[in-house]
Amino acid sequence: MTLISDHVEADMRGRIVVVAEKLFREIGYQKTTVADIAKVLRMSPANVYRFFDSKKSIIAAVAQRLMGEVEEAAQVVATTPKPVQLRLRELLISIHQLNSERYVGDAKLHEMVAIAMEENWDVCVAHIERVTGTIGGVIAEGVASGEFYAPDVPLAAMCTCTAMLRYFHPQMIVECAEKPGPTVDQMIDFVLAGLAPRG
Amino acid sequence: MTLISDHVEADMRGRIVVVAEKLFREIGYQKTTVADIAKVLRMSPANVYRFFDSKKSIIAAVAQRLMGEVEEAAQVVATTPKPVQLRLRELLISIHQLNSERYVGDAKLHEMVAIAMEENWDVCVAHIERVTGTIGGVIAEGVASGEFYAPDVPLAAMCTCTAMLRYFHPQMIVECAEKPGPTVDQMIDFVLAGLAPRG
Repeated sequence: MTLISDHVEADMRGRIVVVAEKLFREIGYQKTTVADIAKVLRMSPANVYRFFDSKKSIIAAVAQRLMGEVEEAAQVVATTPKPVQLRLRELLISIHQLNSERYVGDAKLHEMVAIAMEENWDVCVAHIERVTGTIGGVIAEGVASGEFYAPDVPLAAMCTCTAMLRYFHPQMIVECAEKPGPTVDQMIDFVLAGLAPRG
Repeated sequence: MTLISDHVEADMRGRIVVVAEKLFREIGYQKTTVADIAKVLRMSPANVYRFFDSKKSIIAAVAQRLMGEVEEAAQVVATTPKPVQLRLRELLISIHQLNSERYVGDAKLHEMVAIAMEENWDVCVAHIERVTGTIGGVIAEGVASGEFYAPDVPLAAMCTCTAMLRYFHPQMIVECAEKPGPTVDQMIDFVLAGLAPRG
């Protein structure tokens, strides 16, 4: 019975998150109430509160879902059998594109993400750590094959991620989209130069 | 007469900007009115409007003043006679420190800067271009002496500036101050590696 009720519980949480994301996108985070979410699911607000103790917990779960999609897609690119330099380039481009698709050109979703980031920074930190870990995996392979030089791989991965902030951070993507600066490909050239073996 | 009245006019503009900055810092940009600024200067709001057509123009001038201080200080570091690698490091650190001092730990000033950046993006773009130009000057010297490799110096300067976004951008400085990530020195090591001559 435990397994079944666990499954039912996970399913209910999942349904709440999907409906919440839909409403946050449609009418905005601030204007959406737990009662609105409950209504779409034909349940009482009290029942929603059985699964999430606050709207803040719901937005954290929505953010986690969106970030989880990025992490999974990035992992696929990172493990595709391709030369390591090209793979790192494609990985960095795909993180940029995955974040852009999710967070740009949708003011309501953008508001939601800004709030989610402010209120649940630990969720974001965990996401950044996972993405940095994926980048570090590719850098480590390049170091092993002699194609990259990085005496401290986790640090090189953090620096790579930080160098790409303009292209990874939802707010920076929006703010800098039309502003002068390097293209994402030019920036990756610069990062790859920083990882090149010393002469 | 023209020279004298030009001087008087510049002086009045300067006084308005100094008083406005003081009020924006003390009571916040949103709550400060043109009438408040006029009152401190013992003049009529109409007289302030002779020099600035709106509060938006005043905040642009305040932002320009703050950014101008950063540009001048950066220029001094960039032209101090020191080895070029060390000079670039000190330049990047000083831009980080100058921006941190100005914009961190002062919520009201931070609000002001966020609004100034949003409403007067052209002022910010001009500032970023000047700072990037200063960075480019040091990189060009290093290229000439063989200490740096950068086939396209303006692009290398833009990439350097972009790589340092976490440490230069007022909002990113505030948001990332306590978050995991490379230290500013570690990030500069990474940037310098990207500018190192190829083997």
